[in-house]
Amino acid sequence: MTAGLASADSTLLGPGDDAAVVATTDGRVVATTDMLIEGRHFRRDWSTANDVGHKAAARNFADIAAMGAVPTALLVGFATPGDLEVIWADGLVAGLREECGEVGAAVVGGDITEADVICLGITALGDLQGRAPVTLSGARVGDIVAFAGRLGWAAAGFAVLSRGFRSPVQVVAAHRRPEPPYAEGPRAAEAGATSMTDVSDGLVADLGHIAEASGVRIDLLGAQLPVPAKLAEVGAALNVDPRLWVLTGGDDYALVATFPAGTALSEAWTRIGVVNEGEGVRVDGRRWPAGGHEHFR
Amino acid sequence: MTAGLASADSTLLGPGDDAAVVATTDGRVVATTDMLIEGRHFRRDWSTANDVGHKAAARNFADIAAMGAVPTALLVGFATPGDLEVIWADGLVAGLREECGEVGAAVVGGDITEADVICLGITALGDLQGRAPVTLSGARVGDIVAFAGRLGWAAAGFAVLSRGFRSPVQVVAAHRRPEPPYAEGPRAAEAGATSMTDVSDGLVADLGHIAEASGVRIDLLGAQLPVPAKLAEVGAALNVDPRLWVLTGGDDYALVATFPAGTALSEAWTRIGVVNEGEGVRVDGRRWPAGGHEHFR
Repeated sequence: MTAGLASADSTLLGPGDDAAVVATTDGRVVATTDMLIEGRHFRRDWSTANDVGHKAAARNFADIAAMGAVPTALLVGFATPGDLEVIWADGLVAGLREECGEVGAAVVGGDITEADVICLGITALGDLQGRAPVTLSGARVGDIVAFAGRLGWAAAGFAVLSRGFRSPVQVVAAHRRPEPPYAEGPRAAEAGATSMTDVSDGLVADLGHIAEASGVRIDLLGAQLPVPAKLAEVGAALNVDPRLWVLTGGDDYALVATFPAGTALSEAWTRIGVVNEGEGVRVDGRRWPAGGHEHFR
Repeated sequence: MTAGLASADSTLLGPGDDAAVVATTDGRVVATTDMLIEGRHFRRDWSTANDVGHKAAARNFADIAAMGAVPTALLVGFATPGDLEVIWADGLVAGLREECGEVGAAVVGGDITEADVICLGITALGDLQGRAPVTLSGARVGDIVAFAGRLGWAAAGFAVLSRGFRSPVQVVAAHRRPEPPYAEGPRAAEAGATSMTDVSDGLVADLGHIAEASGVRIDLLGAQLPVPAKLAEVGAALNVDPRLWVLTGGDDYALVATFPAGTALSEAWTRIGVVNEGEGVRVDGRRWPAGGHEHFR
């Protein structure tokens, strides 16, 4: 499945040997891995193979961007039933390649084996280009909290698909093929971000990781949380408060970061809160419940 | 599962953040990935969790060594049934850590998710320390062929286990916990190896990859192939020609390489053949059949 995959500039030795060789520019490499299991992370009746390839790469590249790094390479472990249609595997590879093309990375290696359901083990590498990594633990009292990208769109799409609908296409497409704001990761690092992560578990949950690692409390201001008209419309149709999707939906892979007060943020970033002494994440002063989903239901 | 894992010197940022940061010494990183599926790559009734961890790491570190590199880091994707015993997961992590300790690497990242059977997506990183990577494509006519490590032991162990036996312990242990000759990879690179790979599919199959990539024929001399007394003994007991295990058995992760004629090899290496013009792999002048297993049966 790795034959014919394009090499980006950082690929010194691509697929086909025992291992790949990838260039690093500053004596460090950034690396992250995750697993996607058919039926749990994707459904073949909800997403095309191409969508699954895009999303599998995007999840990992968002993790690289959240460190302030630029993605350089992808390694793809692919366990598949023996009777999988070749066209599905080809579509997956095309999606992986296309998402690599978005960021200038390349698929440099892989492994294919058999399994009863499709399992993907995806690893992304990245380059910090001399920047310090932006970790979860650097948020300081007085910092501002801001995000870039989309919040709640994929969750709204999931809600739509779960109820058997296929539209509105905007939210369904957001579920199928996220568009993380990759370039904003390195930009945030250069702007002085003190902590950063990508929103994969949900805004409150992922900010909770920053709060815990940094030993601070994060206060979000509900009035600053954008609820796009499309989400409000879908929420009204499904009888769901769309703020639930904004606050708890993952899979859009927005970036959320803390910056020193007074940092001039580009228009890609929306300020949504502040860092205070304490612990956990609060929305308008109220502790967000652990089982947060009940909050709006 | 990544909590508390020891960091080796090359770990600049270990588990717990969006991604890990690993040191590279020469502007390059070596990377390889593969998938292990319960029931296909391991059986919980044949191997302990500790064994599975050792083997999962060893397979990938052998790929790193086969490039002439030193393993530095491991990333572990772990999909597991929700009812897996905690002691099994702990044993797996311990095995992964112990094998990392053998080579001075560290588990730097991971991902846990649910699946119906255990799926491991393992990625290893390595450092060439300034050496050129030893690829599959550099074998030249006139080179000698040699291997380091063990051949056929794991296959003999598999045969024993397949027939319901648990001994001899030497071959069963070889199946459960391979001992690749990691250090011989960088040493072979320094000695001038022109091509190298690790034996995971079987000696003839993996030399076939070198023959194809290099555009040469590899001639093995049967008389030079060692058949250890223990394998002869097990073969006699099971009515199997032990040369079958030596020539086609994988999972010992021996290293096999080509060197310019006249290279002084250390005693870790055994000369087994020569590189000639042509294609494919021959044993005593006979083309090894594609369905090689029938040859001795």
